[in-house]
Amino acid sequence: MAINNPFYTSEFHGDYDVISIGELTLEEGGVIPDCQLAVKTWGTLAEAKDNVILIPTWYSGTHQTWNDVYVGADHALNPEKYFIVCINQIGSGLSTSPHNADGANAGITMSKFPDVRIGDNVVAQERLLREHFGIDRLALVVGGSMGAQQTYEWAVRFPDKVLRAAPIAGTAQNTPEDYLIAQVIREQIQSDPGWNDGEYATNADVVDGLTRQAHIWAIKGLSSEFWKQEVYRGLEFESKEAFLAGFLEPVFTAMDPNDLLTQSWAWQRGDVARHTDGDLAAALGRITAKTFVMPIDEDQLFPPRDCEPEQKMIPNSEFRVVNDILGHLGLFGVAPTFMEQIDKHLGELLAIEV
Amino acid sequence: MAINNPFYTSEFHGDYDVISIGELTLEEGGVIPDCQLAVKTWGTLAEAKDNVILIPTWYSGTHQTWNDVYVGADHALNPEKYFIVCINQIGSGLSTSPHNADGANAGITMSKFPDVRIGDNVVAQERLLREHFGIDRLALVVGGSMGAQQTYEWAVRFPDKVLRAAPIAGTAQNTPEDYLIAQVIREQIQSDPGWNDGEYATNADVVDGLTRQAHIWAIKGLSSEFWKQEVYRGLEFESKEAFLAGFLEPVFTAMDPNDLLTQSWAWQRGDVARHTDGDLAAALGRITAKTFVMPIDEDQLFPPRDCEPEQKMIPNSEFRVVNDILGHLGLFGVAPTFMEQIDKHLGELLAIEV
Repeated sequence: MAINNPFYTSEFHGDYDVISIGELTLEEGGVIPDCQLAVKTWGTLAEAKDNVILIPTWYSGTHQTWNDVYVGADHALNPEKYFIVCINQIGSGLSTSPHNADGANAGITMSKFPDVRIGDNVVAQERLLREHFGIDRLALVVGGSMGAQQTYEWAVRFPDKVLRAAPIAGTAQNTPEDYLIAQVIREQIQSDPGWNDGEYATNADVVDGLTRQAHIWAIKGLSSEFWKQEVYRGLEFESKEAFLAGFLEPVFTAMDPNDLLTQSWAWQRGDVARHTDGDLAAALGRITAKTFVMPIDEDQLFPPRDCEPEQKMIPNSEFRVVNDILGHLGLFGVAPTFMEQIDKHLGELLAIEV
Repeated sequence: MAINNPFYTSEFHGDYDVISIGELTLEEGGVIPDCQLAVKTWGTLAEAKDNVILIPTWYSGTHQTWNDVYVGADHALNPEKYFIVCINQIGSGLSTSPHNADGANAGITMSKFPDVRIGDNVVAQERLLREHFGIDRLALVVGGSMGAQQTYEWAVRFPDKVLRAAPIAGTAQNTPEDYLIAQVIREQIQSDPGWNDGEYATNADVVDGLTRQAHIWAIKGLSSEFWKQEVYRGLEFESKEAFLAGFLEPVFTAMDPNDLLTQSWAWQRGDVARHTDGDLAAALGRITAKTFVMPIDEDQLFPPRDCEPEQKMIPNSEFRVVNDILGHLGLFGVAPTFMEQIDKHLGELLAIEV
């Protein structure tokens, strides 16, 4: 039975559309009978349909941060110039997800939800853009973290459709440490007796596990220097405990445990080399998009040294490191120096003729 | 009621002595009525009592790794030359600890065990060395991780007694990220319903929490390159899952949860600046020992950048980085290149006239 979680509504997420792409058969063999994708758009689609920017979403995130931080007339992601489409991933809580699967999807609700891969999301997005908007060419695909995984997947799977790509703070092939980090994050939820093998009555039943998950983000999602330099004081928190209680914990305890598990399962297995029998260089060699690989210097999840070898395998690419003491969670864009770097890189990328 | 845990016996730990130092009043106000310290010695005390090396132990560790890896006629820690004393910390499971507190200590068993600080351990060790062995001068104090914390504490608290100091992979003042890492480690145990607020019947009741703790060590105790380069294959494990199941998990599930909690509480609060009203430079400025600060380059817990600022505050010190892809758990000495570096640095340190 689906759960009513007020976090995943327009009250918290503003206006967005929910668009059905019909039945979606998944790589692992499961089926979503009626796959609905939550879509946020900004700007106007040009008649030539040549001004489209696609944004896939990251783990636990939605279009909201992109709306609040990244998109605007003063940014590279400028809706006065581009038609920008953010498609929330399957399991995001806004698109079809374990907690909201009902109606035609009643058979895959909660613990019965099938395993979804990065590739499934990209296939679903491609179908939506083509069938609903008639879009078959993307000026840019840009995403952070799991959004970067999907960006790489787009560029490898549909090279002719992606003119430019900007994977931020993510890898094309998930690293083994990232797999283990995601596993630890999953265990925090699954070890909570309130999770009840995925058949809880409300996410509040899993508040302990969700809170512990927030603490994993504290030690891997941020940097040691964030804590040492007490950067949280600039964010109006007086102590690290206050930052945990006032920011990280509420972010995660509002969310749905099964939805997060669906996302992290896909995160663990992100790998474009699935297209080339495990040959990563061959997969990345397929990319024709002009690509800026954009790791964050203090990222503990996807550090530059994991991203640079991949960049070197992409024919038409550049390595653009973003400096942010927040590390991976720098993606939230709270550092005053973050967006100016993102805008510089994305602005330069969009200015390149392809 | 005390618990019988076969891991904390001579069967697993070889010969060692348990020596009582009597009642120990703790910094936080608690009292250990009969503080017993497990002591392993190698070599012979010189008549002048000027050949003593002290080794305090790390979190979850005992004298065993020092016996198997660090001490020997072919090492800088040479028992043919030095009288080497390893004192297992309070809460180590071999010395007085929650799980074994009985007899005179019956009042502080299990959940009733008092909070113990790094300083309490050092005070206890100093008393033992002085009263039991008549030792009042140490040629060297050397320890890793929490052993490094105790090494710093020795050098600051008893500067006249410490001629040389070698803190390996640890800091004088615990960093905030380390505090949070230890908190996450603690939560893995405390969130297990079997822990039962510290009143379990056997450590097997907490096997889930101890297993999850092992997984935290997998993502912080080792390095991302350890996993990426599949270094575990050289240790005879075929996969990362096999390494977890065959090494990290058995290490921690054998141990006592409350003992680990006693140690991690001290780890979280290690800070020599307690002697100087929070002034770290003043505390480290007290050190007269010739000191080699020895971080491990890939250490995620105590990275070189956290150790170097401290080294610069120590008058007669050098910064000696140890290279080890295992990161913090390089302390186990499994990399073939580890001990040659340790022996080189400690050999050079011991050769310096002070």
